[in-house]
Amino acid sequence: ASSDDARPAKVQELCVYEINERDRGSPAYLRLSKKEVNSLGDLVPFSNKLYTGDLKKRIGITAGICVLIENKPEMKGDRYEAIYSFYFGDYGQIAVQGSYLTYEDTYLAVTGGTGIFEGVSGQVKLQQIVFPFKLFYTFYLKGIKDLPEELLSNRVDPSPAVEPHPDAKACHPHAVVPNYTN
Amino acid sequence: ASSDDARPAKVQELCVYEINERDRGSPAYLRLSKKEVNSLGDLVPFSNKLYTGDLKKRIGITAGICVLIENKPEMKGDRYEAIYSFYFGDYGQIAVQGSYLTYEDTYLAVTGGTGIFEGVSGQVKLQQIVFPFKLFYTFYLKGIKDLPEELLSNRVDPSPAVEPHPDAKACHPHAVVPNYTN
Amino acid sequence: ASSDDARPAKVQELCVYEINERDRGSPAYLRLSKKEVNSLGDLVPFSNKLYTGDLKKRIGITAGICVLIENKPEMKGDRYEAIYSFYFGDYGQIAVQGSYLTYEDTYLAVTGGTGIFEGVSGQVKLQQIVFPFKLFYTFYLKGIKDLPEELLSNRVDPSPAVEPHPDAKACHPHAVVPNYTN
Repeated sequence: ASSDDARPAKVQELCVYEINERDRGSPAYLRLSKKEVNSLGDLVPFSNKLYTGDLKKRIGITAGICVLIENKPEMKGDRYEAIYSFYFGDYGQIAVQGSYLTYEDTYLAVTGGTGIFEGVSGQVKLQQIVFPFKLFYTFYLKGIKDLPEELLSNRVDPSPAVEPHPDAKACHPHAVVPNYTN
Repeated sequence: ASSDDARPAKVQELCVYEINERDRGSPAYLRLSKKEVNSLGDLVPFSNKLYTGDLKKRIGITAGICVLIENKPEMKGDRYEAIYSFYFGDYGQIAVQGSYLTYEDTYLAVTGGTGIFEGVSGQVKLQQIVFPFKLFYTFYLKGIKDLPEELLSNRVDPSPAVEPHPDAKACHPHAVVPNYTN
Repeated sequence: ASSDDARPAKVQELCVYEINERDRGSPAYLRLSKKEVNSLGDLVPFSNKLYTGDLKKRIGITAGICVLIENKPEMKGDRYEAIYSFYFGDYGQIAVQGSYLTYEDTYLAVTGGTGIFEGVSGQVKLQQIVFPFKLFYTFYLKGIKDLPEELLSNRVDPSPAVEPHPDAKACHPHAVVPNYTN
């Protein structure tokens, strides 16, 4: 195989913020279990906004579904199986699957990608900042070419006070990635 | 690593038609949002038929679910997150995840496979021909051995008039892949 | 690439038992088709317990959803599209997608993993032992380091009579993997 064909084995880190600005009708909690307490049978389709790790640019959206697996009264929280994608405008998409626990950080599997993420593998760390409105993700990605500078900005450390830059929130042309997903 | 162990890096193209012949009770539009307009909360399990790119052989079925993410009135259409598999009879299966937009072509991530598609990675281009009854897919696949001739037939260019060959539609033995999925 | 970076190409086999001990409220059969016979539109979130192939250790749980695709009266069974993960405590997770047929064995695609399964690819054979309470899986995994001894125990051959060791069922410290998932 030529070097062009080779599957890069190095790990690249990519940080993004997922923020629910309460303007997408998300999440849609479907209480299909018909029980008062969150229970197996409940489903939660969702879609939130994505920003770069420095919060200066709008990237796109998340889109997918959480399957309620178990309510954990002792943790005052829930276990979900989450199946969703991260959309990065013209750059493409990363698909993930794994556990979302409302009470602690988890890792999810990266299951595939498109565009610059075609052929990607790896995992992603999910850190909850403000439930369920602000999350911080660190992707550990293999099998893809060097990521563009624009996505590798210096990250703002996660804290409850973080907010996207107003220009990014307003989707000003200098504060979005090309054809950001909406 | 011996050459047998090596993960082939070359990209193979594979074209298939997905056709809804309205005989599988699909799609099942579950209006769980309880809103009049398609909205987050709606789910759409589906299963259609699959034919080779030349429409001369029945391959199998698609099977999975679309999660309605957002209605786009300005596009007169919808964004879905789609999670489904393509079944190729004895040849195996390809799993995909990504966006299905009713108003434009998209790429979805190939997330895995079985049989001759074991260990596959890549992406697939989805082209809508007649919403929502005829779709054309071009897979770009890596990590697998050379695909069988039968699947690599000369494609018929997508157009609204395309129809599977009557023998394929009737699943005559010479017009199906081995143990085509149904 | 150094040998550390190389993606191992050898196939490793991993056997596990999935057992429904009827104490997790699973499965939740959501008859959203509103039809008397199982039909497209029905969804089945589920979560069962996982044991090592020798049934001596509790590993964790499965978690995910089955999408009813078609009832097959001639087979007295159903075709589902299954999307779920296997959780192995501190070892991590394997995500899978593919067909679950209640009347015959199938292979599903391994779509990704976390922890020791980060970057995994391959497929898994699903064997039904006692519908729908006991299943046996044989994973064929590539792209990961050598699996720990603890998971590679000698398997007990699948039969309707198999039961987890009482210590594993009771989750005694010597009969669980580190931080087994629950």
